[in-house]
Amino acid sequence: MPESLDQIPTLEQIRQTQLAISAMVRRTPVLSSETIDSMCGARLFFKCENFQKVGAFKMRGAASAALRLTEAEKAKGLATHSSGNHAQAVARAASLLKIPAYIVMPDNAPAIKQAATRGYGAEIIFCESSQQAREAALEDLIQRTGATFIHPYDDYNIIAGQATAAAELIAEVEQLDMLIAPVGGGGLISGTALAAHYLLPDAKVIGAEPAKADDAYRSLASGVRQSNASANTIADGLRTHLGEKNFAIMQKYVDEIITVTEEQIVAAMRLIWERMKIVIEPSAAVPLAAVWKQQRQFAGSRIGIILTGGNIELSKLPF
Amino acid sequence: MPESLDQIPTLEQIRQTQLAISAMVRRTPVLSSETIDSMCGARLFFKCENFQKVGAFKMRGAASAALRLTEAEKAKGLATHSSGNHAQAVARAASLLKIPAYIVMPDNAPAIKQAATRGYGAEIIFCESSQQAREAALEDLIQRTGATFIHPYDDYNIIAGQATAAAELIAEVEQLDMLIAPVGGGGLISGTALAAHYLLPDAKVIGAEPAKADDAYRSLASGVRQSNASANTIADGLRTHLGEKNFAIMQKYVDEIITVTEEQIVAAMRLIWERMKIVIEPSAAVPLAAVWKQQRQFAGSRIGIILTGGNIELSKLPF
Repeated sequence: MPESLDQIPTLEQIRQTQLAISAMVRRTPVLSSETIDSMCGARLFFKCENFQKVGAFKMRGAASAALRLTEAEKAKGLATHSSGNHAQAVARAASLLKIPAYIVMPDNAPAIKQAATRGYGAEIIFCESSQQAREAALEDLIQRTGATFIHPYDDYNIIAGQATAAAELIAEVEQLDMLIAPVGGGGLISGTALAAHYLLPDAKVIGAEPAKADDAYRSLASGVRQSNASANTIADGLRTHLGEKNFAIMQKYVDEIITVTEEQIVAAMRLIWERMKIVIEPSAAVPLAAVWKQQRQFAGSRIGIILTGGNIELSKLPF
Repeated sequence: MPESLDQIPTLEQIRQTQLAISAMVRRTPVLSSETIDSMCGARLFFKCENFQKVGAFKMRGAASAALRLTEAEKAKGLATHSSGNHAQAVARAASLLKIPAYIVMPDNAPAIKQAATRGYGAEIIFCESSQQAREAALEDLIQRTGATFIHPYDDYNIIAGQATAAAELIAEVEQLDMLIAPVGGGGLISGTALAAHYLLPDAKVIGAEPAKADDAYRSLASGVRQSNASANTIADGLRTHLGEKNFAIMQKYVDEIITVTEEQIVAAMRLIWERMKIVIEPSAAVPLAAVWKQQRQFAGSRIGIILTGGNIELSKLPF
């Protein structure tokens, strides 16, 4: 197994990661839609991480981080706090490796997410819905179990894992003028930017972000990591703040951040559901919303887009 | 181009059809879900016609029928009555062949279906929402234009086209113990049964039908074509009555019809959306509902299922 990474992953390390996680993740398909292409006046190639195991690209990072633990660490298990896709990815990675997983979740987390996480065999530790309570609960369980904390994004092992999605997309499509991925904590966009830097250095890399959680836009503009006073966006996967390691990579290798409105996100999501007949979560629609918003900028381009995931409560759709 | 068929398609004719329509249809993927397999205790192979052009298998039959017209017939165009997937398939086939299409629709047809049909360049002729009004409007437009009526199912050219979905599925998966397709007018199930008869003669062929529109079940049981007094099922693609040619093929080559409740259809549809992250219409969920209902019968089997289509109004979902 490759060793744990303590600096920005090299191309060689991303390639090792790809090989190492290949038995734990799916090589997802790249889909296109003639209708959406002609609406946008561009050629769009969608890397369908909604078809990934646990329904999201997060499985790549979790597998990458889990595989790099020593045997002694593995035996004590994985820990994280999340009620979203990262929780399920850590739980699933642990179950594939036949090791324990401990997930701290706020006690108001949706029943469906609790059930999915428990379905992978993880132990859920409930806490109050505050950052402080979450960190205390995590600290406590690590003391108790000796499990290793798997950060959702601010970690080079995670970043190397998320980079494999873009690496596969680039290998499959070859000619791309740009890559667009959504920005939450920055795990995916920093991995995507690294993959493009190594494998397709002429391509632009663009982050897409809800205007209601535009910390990445403000951070890159000001050169200082910013946070969101609130982040009340339907793209619930993108409400988190940028990680430190992620921001450093983005400053080097991300060309631009485009922000979009809630209405643009919902319209893009609906277009993908209706035309491509696939289920994606709101966060996954943010890059198409960006292309649609700034059509003139993208006219005639070949654009790779990471569709981050497909986990959404069907009884609470925005249309 | 192959000639128009006036009897049950042979294997050679189905193969010719496959070749002839290949530029007009998509070779759709076959997807599986480990979760659904383990829930059902069987191996399911889903032929994803929701990814077909116009979002439904109907494109295959329409292409097959349209291509078989003489040049003189083509010049006068295609006609049909439908507000569903067949209308869009005929419209799209005509637009690909650069010939006119005339679609008779009830004046209460959903705006979204009107728009889709018109989007392919077809002329819509509205009529009252009765069988009689529909036939009169169709007759009238054929008189006026000389267009050729493309029946939605009771036609050997259509059946040969629909057979190509199962032919592709069998070629891709090879070992299958049975094939299951939904039954409406019988175009798909009769084509599926023929493909299995020629290409996989040991496989069972099963039709799946809503209990609320169980004319195929009663027809096969009694040996006489039956109709539905009403057909108030969510599986709107399956409300039609069996065609004569379709029934004759089914009597020979379909082993069994399984009927399912509305609740079973919705549960199966939800399962496919949630686990496979694809958008399917209610009719497409009927075969999985049948497997789920009669689990013991199917335990350990390798089952090919045709997912018929993915056209559904997102603002009117049953969950």
